Amino acid sequence: MFNILISHIQQKIDLDENEAELLKSFFIQRLFRKKQYVLQAGDVCEYLAFVSKGILKSYILDEKGIERINMFAFEGWWISDFNSYINQERAVLNIDVIENAELLLINRENYEELTKQIPKMDRYFRILYQNSLVTKDHRLIISNNFTAEEKYLYLVKNNPEMIQKLPHNLIASYLGLSPETISRIRKKLLFK
Amino acid sequence: MFNILISHIQQKIDLDENEAELLKSFFIQRLFRKKQYVLQAGDVCEYLAFVSKGILKSYILDEKGIERINMFAFEGWWISDFNSYINQERAVLNIDVIENAELLLINRENYEELTKQIPKMDRYFRILYQNSLVTKDHRLIISNNFTAEEKYLYLVKNNPEMIQKLPHNLIASYLGLSPETISRIRKKLLFK
Repeated sequence: MFNILISHIQQKIDLDENEAELLKSFFIQRLFRKKQYVLQAGDVCEYLAFVSKGILKSYILDEKGIERINMFAFEGWWISDFNSYINQERAVLNIDVIENAELLLINRENYEELTKQIPKMDRYFRILYQNSLVTKDHRLIISNNFTAEEKYLYLVKNNPEMIQKLPHNLIASYLGLSPETISRIRKKLLFK
Repeated sequence: MFNILISHIQQKIDLDENEAELLKSFFIQRLFRKKQYVLQAGDVCEYLAFVSKGILKSYILDEKGIERINMFAFEGWWISDFNSYINQERAVLNIDVIENAELLLINRENYEELTKQIPKMDRYFRILYQNSLVTKDHRLIISNNFTAEEKYLYLVKNNPEMIQKLPHNLIASYLGLSPETISRIRKKLLFK
């Protein structure tokens, strides 16, 4: 289960075998079944999770009980309610499993200890968060300025994995569109 | 001009005098007057800017030519079009000066070199970006789920500096509200 995490880290920093062994000791491994909850809103997010297999989603339940998708996480992605994890406050996000998943989990204390014992992990997380900030900026700009069709086309171009692996209703929720709008756009694109 | 930056960094990591001297050599100092542009959308964002004095704003100009404020930066804050800076792509944000400013600027190459020569700066930026991700998550949740009045009250509570130092029209743009809505909310609160 650790191979994907180690190689993900080694894409960004050098990590020798001893460091990789040490790193593993900070994580626990856990299997989750489809539809199983990883985090419920209102609880404190205990773990930062690395997805070594499967697909997860994080979402808010609005006052009508409708899911508003915040993000998906595929193999090689990290997921959490980051504010809840960092500040140990109550989570606003729910996280659950779309496809049977294997997760590597690190708690808040071990996360601090990991960067103390392997300081170059600060570099790894610095680069990870840097990319995450760029992605969030992109999403905010797209969300505020793109038409429905532009939003869908942006996803097709930049995240084909999402389009291939996820049902339309989840894609629609992620883009803040109705499933009907997605169907209409897809039909229009097919005829082009 | 460097005192604020150095003490800002020392709040997060240990930095000795030699390292502080070395750090300074990666930055250039520049003064900007009120209303002067620091970055124009369409250009590549050359610098990550630390505000050692003054107030700046970043914003998008929408198709009607209306400013949509992305963020303000006060003394001790960093500002840039982060995607443009990191990936050296064209900026979507404009950045200009609300109150005469002194900036410490670091270009993309020096930013990489700084973290190589002073590796613990990775830790500083890791913590900085961590906090920034938390703030962005907050803003997105507030923007999608709070009423106009809740948005204003949240700002009063969590960023009183903004309310005190900035005119209403800028606060309105930052919250995605009209100046009239802000006036109405303020009147209502005064009578409570």
